[in-house]
Amino acid sequence: MQAGANDTWRGEFTVSSFGHWEYVVHVSIDAFASWQQTLRRRVEASQDEDVAVELEVGAALLLNLADGIPPREAEGLRSAAAGLTGGTRPAAVAAALSAQLRSEVERLGGESGGCASAVFPVQVEPVRARYGAWYEFFPRSAACGHHANLREAESRLDYAASMGFNVVYLPPIHPIGRTNRKGPNNSLRPEPDDPGSPWAIGGAEGGHRALHPLLGTMEDFHHFLEHARGLGLEVAMDLAFQCSPDHPAVREHPEWFWRRPDGSVRFAENPPKKYEDIFPFNFGCEAWQELWDELRDTVLFWAAQGVSIFRVDNPHTKPVAFWEWLIAEVREQHPEVVFLAEAFARPAMLHMLAKVGFSQSYTYFTWRNTARELREYLTELCCSPGREYLRPNLWANTPDIISEYLQSGGRNGFAIRLILAATLGANYGIYGPAFELCDDNPLRPGSEEYLDSEKYQLRCWDIEDARSLRPLITRVNRIRAEHVSLQADWSLTFHESDNPSLLSYSKSDPETGDTVLMVVNLDPHYTQSGFITLAASVGTEPGSYQVHDLLTGARYLWSGTRNFVSLDPATTPAHIFSLRRKVRSEHDFEYFA
Amino acid sequence: MQAGANDTWRGEFTVSSFGHWEYVVHVSIDAFASWQQTLRRRVEASQDEDVAVELEVGAALLLNLADGIPPREAEGLRSAAAGLTGGTRPAAVAAALSAQLRSEVERLGGESGGCASAVFPVQVEPVRARYGAWYEFFPRSAACGHHANLREAESRLDYAASMGFNVVYLPPIHPIGRTNRKGPNNSLRPEPDDPGSPWAIGGAEGGHRALHPLLGTMEDFHHFLEHARGLGLEVAMDLAFQCSPDHPAVREHPEWFWRRPDGSVRFAENPPKKYEDIFPFNFGCEAWQELWDELRDTVLFWAAQGVSIFRVDNPHTKPVAFWEWLIAEVREQHPEVVFLAEAFARPAMLHMLAKVGFSQSYTYFTWRNTARELREYLTELCCSPGREYLRPNLWANTPDIISEYLQSGGRNGFAIRLILAATLGANYGIYGPAFELCDDNPLRPGSEEYLDSEKYQLRCWDIEDARSLRPLITRVNRIRAEHVSLQADWSLTFHESDNPSLLSYSKSDPETGDTVLMVVNLDPHYTQSGFITLAASVGTEPGSYQVHDLLTGARYLWSGTRNFVSLDPATTPAHIFSLRRKVRSEHDFEYFA
Repeated sequence: MQAGANDTWRGEFTVSSFGHWEYVVHVSIDAFASWQQTLRRRVEASQDEDVAVELEVGAALLLNLADGIPPREAEGLRSAAAGLTGGTRPAAVAAALSAQLRSEVERLGGESGGCASAVFPVQVEPVRARYGAWYEFFPRSAACGHHANLREAESRLDYAASMGFNVVYLPPIHPIGRTNRKGPNNSLRPEPDDPGSPWAIGGAEGGHRALHPLLGTMEDFHHFLEHARGLGLEVAMDLAFQCSPDHPAVREHPEWFWRRPDGSVRFAENPPKKYEDIFPFNFGCEAWQELWDELRDTVLFWAAQGVSIFRVDNPHTKPVAFWEWLIAEVREQHPEVVFLAEAFARPAMLHMLAKVGFSQSYTYFTWRNTARELREYLTELCCSPGREYLRPNLWANTPDIISEYLQSGGRNGFAIRLILAATLGANYGIYGPAFELCDDNPLRPGSEEYLDSEKYQLRCWDIEDARSLRPLITRVNRIRAEHVSLQADWSLTFHESDNPSLLSYSKSDPETGDTVLMVVNLDPHYTQSGFITLAASVGTEPGSYQVHDLLTGARYLWSGTRNFVSLDPATTPAHIFSLRRKVRSEHDFEYFA
Repeated sequence: MQAGANDTWRGEFTVSSFGHWEYVVHVSIDAFASWQQTLRRRVEASQDEDVAVELEVGAALLLNLADGIPPREAEGLRSAAAGLTGGTRPAAVAAALSAQLRSEVERLGGESGGCASAVFPVQVEPVRARYGAWYEFFPRSAACGHHANLREAESRLDYAASMGFNVVYLPPIHPIGRTNRKGPNNSLRPEPDDPGSPWAIGGAEGGHRALHPLLGTMEDFHHFLEHARGLGLEVAMDLAFQCSPDHPAVREHPEWFWRRPDGSVRFAENPPKKYEDIFPFNFGCEAWQELWDELRDTVLFWAAQGVSIFRVDNPHTKPVAFWEWLIAEVREQHPEVVFLAEAFARPAMLHMLAKVGFSQSYTYFTWRNTARELREYLTELCCSPGREYLRPNLWANTPDIISEYLQSGGRNGFAIRLILAATLGANYGIYGPAFELCDDNPLRPGSEEYLDSEKYQLRCWDIEDARSLRPLITRVNRIRAEHVSLQADWSLTFHESDNPSLLSYSKSDPETGDTVLMVVNLDPHYTQSGFITLAASVGTEPGSYQVHDLLTGARYLWSGTRNFVSLDPATTPAHIFSLRRKVRSEHDFEYFA
C-alpha cells in the first residue's frame, strides 16, 4: 500500500471473477524501517555520539530477529549486526541504511505487532451493471396490423443495434389473463381481440415460465436471444411478480394469495385505485418458503435460457428481505446476472434495494428539469457515499411516463432529454419507438400516461419517419462507446454558467485522460447564450485551445476557463466537446498544447 | 416517534445522569391502524361494497386479537367486532375509525411482527463538554518579583471570573526536575534559580501526585479549588504523562521507560530535536499493565481531590488504546469528568481520540486566518458527521503558539481573533495574561514560540494596563452567557459577503429562537466595507427591521437579506447582532415585526 496525505493509504487488487469478494487490511509496525529513519535523521544532524548508540540499537534489533529464525538465515543477520558495530563508521552507516538490508529484514519477517481490519465485502458485477444504453420496446408492436411474433420482432433488434444500444428490455412476454382484462387506455370494457396488459401475467397457456403463444415458442425465444447476441445486444427480461386471475398458480396455490372474508382472492389496489386484472402475492403467507422458492426457480429458469439481465417491476412493493435472498440465491449459480430495480420509491427504499443487491436502479432523473434540479440530483447520485452501492439508470421516458417536459418541449425537448440522460448517466434508457418518434400525447392534460398506451393496445410505429431522432441517438450512443469517460459516473463535475438555461458538466477517465465536456440548452424553445466557467479540476490551459464538438464536428477556439456558448435548440441543443489532454499521473491532468 | 419526510422518524428521550447510555429502535407493523387507513380511503371513495368487506376484515382482526388475551379484555374486543358487522353502516364505520378503538387495540398489543435495530451508544457528558470559555495561566507568575504560590494565584481566579470565563486551566503544578532543566528561552544552561518547565514533571519532592513546593500544600490546592468554585469557575488540570529524569518513577520503576544500549534511559526526542529534560513512558513495556494502572490511579487521585476537567498534553504520542481504557476507567467512577485532548495531530488521529472518549479537542483554528479558510474549516467541524463525537475547542493562542496573524496584527488582531474564537466556537480558550495584554513578541522571526516564554521563566504581567483587552473579553463572554445560541456549535451558518475581508456567520438556538449574527473584519489594519447577503435559513423579513449590536449597543436599520456593513478594526472590529425572532415551531423561525 502507498501512503497518501493525512494517514490515507491506497492499495489495489485485481478481481478475477464475478461475485462476492472480501478484503482485509493488515497493519503492523515496521520497527527496522522506523529505526533506519531515526538513524538517517541523526546522521543528517551530525549527532555523532547518538549515531554510535543508534547503530547498537540496530544491531540489537537484528540479533533479536536472528534468534527466532532458522540458523542459515540467522547467520546473515548476525554478520550484518556485527557490521553495524564493528568496522568504520561510514561503512556501518551505509550498510545500516541500505535498502538491501531493509528488504532482507522484511523478507525474514521483521515486522512486529499488527492487527487486521474488519472484513470489507466487494460485489463484482459485469460491466453492464455500470454502463449501458437501454432500449425498451413491446415486441408485439413490431409489426403493423397484427400481433407481431418474436421472429418479426427480431427486426427491432437490428434497429436497436443500429442505433448503438447495448440492452433491449422487453415488457413481460408471458401469457396474459382474460379475466378483467383491460382495454385501450385502461378501459374496463375491452373488445374480444384487445391484447391486454402484459403485466397481467398468466392464463390458460401458463404462467411466469411460459411464453405468450402469439409471441412464439421457446425455440423462437432462443432464436431471438441468439440474434441479439450476434448484434452485441443483451436482452433484459421483466420480472413482474404478480398474477392475473387466470394464472395457474391462483388455482394450484391459492395459499400464496391474500383472501377477502368472502373467500375471494384480493386483487391489487391502492384505494381508491383498483387493478382488477392483477393479484399480488402474499410474501408473508404461511407457505412463504414454497412461494419464494418458486419465484427463485423462475428466475433460474430464465437465466438457464440465457437471460442475464432482469428488470424488476415495482420491487419496493415486495419485502426487501425477499430480494436480498433471491438475488443472493440467483448469483450463487449465475454471478453474471444484472438486476435493475424499477424503484420509483422514496429515497430510503431506493437505497435499501441497492444495498441488498440490485445492480442498478431507476431514478428521479425523469422529473428533474431545471439546471439546479439536475445539478443537485446528479451530484447526490454520483458524488455522495451512496454511489458505492447505488448505480443510477436514467430513463428519459417509460411506457408509464411521458413527462410534462416532453409533453411541452416538442422534438427539441426529446433531443435535450436524450442528450442529458446519455451523458449524465453511464446507464440510461428510453422506451421506443415512442421516444425517437417524439410521441408526446398524454392520456389527458395533467396526466403522465400516454394516450393509446402500448400497455393496452398494439401500436403501429413508422420507424422510418424522417423526423425520427434516430440519427441523433445513433451519434450520441457512438460518442458514448468511443469515450470511456462516459461509461462511468463517479467523475461527473458541474461547471458554472451565468445563464441558468445552460447546464454544463464534464466526465473524465482517470486512466486514459479521456475528457468530455457537455453544455446543454435546457430551454427547448429558444436560443440561450452565456459564459461557462470551467471548474479548476478540469485543468484547462491558460492560453487558447481547440474544443471539438462530437455532435456536429464543429471546432471552436476557447481560451482559459471562461468561454462563450450559444445554443439554438432546433439545430444544436447541446455541445459534447472532446478535450484532448495528456495524462501526467493517475490523478493529475494537463492539456496538450 | 413522529414520522418526518422521506421515511425519517424522530423521537426523543431524556437522560437523567452522566455516562454511557444506549438506545434501540423497535419497529413493528400496526395492522389495525393500516386497516383503518384502508377503510377510511374506501369510505371517502364511496366504495360501498368494499366498505362492507373491509368491516368484516376489521372484525376478523379484532377477534383474532381477542383469542390471545385474558377473557375480560377479550370481551370488549369481541363486542367491538360485533359492532363492526352488525348495526347500521354509519355507526359501524364511526366505531371502526374511532381513535378510542385504535388506542384500545394498541393497549392490548395489536402490533405484529417487528424487529429491533442495533444498539446505539450515547455518551452523556456535562454541559462543560459542549460550552465553556477557558482561561489558561501560570499560577507561578501570579505575583511579580517572586514565584507565586496558590494562595496568591487566587487573585487570578477573581480576575478570570471578572472577565466571565468558565474554566481556568493550569499548566502542570507538580515538582519540576533539576537534571537538564531548561533556562529562559529553552536554554540548556539555566541559572540556579531558574524555575524550569512545568512539563518536566517530578523531582525529589515527588511526581504526578505531588504539588510543587513553591505553589503550596494540598490544603492550599483545596482552598484554591474552593475559591474557584465560589466564583463559578472550574479548574482544569494538565495531564502530561512524562517524567523528568528526577521523577521518583524513574528510580522506582525503571522498567516503565525506554533504555538505550548503554543502559541509560532514553529522553524524548524527534531527531534532530531533543527534549533532554523529559523521559517518555514506554506504554508497551512488559510491565505495561502496572504502568497503565498507576496513570489511571493518578487521574482518580486528582478527581478525588475535586478536579473534574483534565487537559491532556500530547495525547497522540501515546497509544489510542491506552486513552480508550483510561477514560472509560475514570468515567466509571467519575462520569462527570471532562477530557480535553491537546491533539495538534493529523485529522485521522484527532478524530480517533475523540471517538475513543475525549470530550473536546484542540483544533487548527489557531492557524485558519482568511474567510475561506475559516469558513471551510468551521463547516467541517460543525456540519460534518464528525460533529457527533468531536467537540472543538478554539484556542486563540497557547504558551506554545503565538501565531503569525497575532504577531503582525497588533492589538486589533488580538481583538479579532478573540471575537472569532468566542463566537465561532462554543468552547474557546486563550492563554493569558499574554493574550489580553497583546504580547506579540516571537522568540525570533518566523518562530511561533514566545520570546521569554513563561514555560521557562516567571513573568510579571500588568493586568491593569489600560490597553488590555479585558473590557472586550468581558463583554464578549457576557454575550456568550446571555445568548444560548452561542453555547452550541451545530447551528453555525455562514453568509455571503462581497468583500472577502468580511466574514459573516450566525448561530441560532432551535428551542428559544435566540439568534446571533456576526460580521467580522478579518483585516486588522484597514476599514473594510461591503454587502452581506443572509442565507435563506436565517429567515429575515422582507421589509426593514432593526439589528442591535451587542458589542457597541448601536442599532441599525436593515432591510431584506442584503445589507451594507463597514468595520474599522481600531474601533469596531466586528458586529455581534442580536436578531429578535419569534418561534413558530421547533425548526421554523420568523422575525418579530
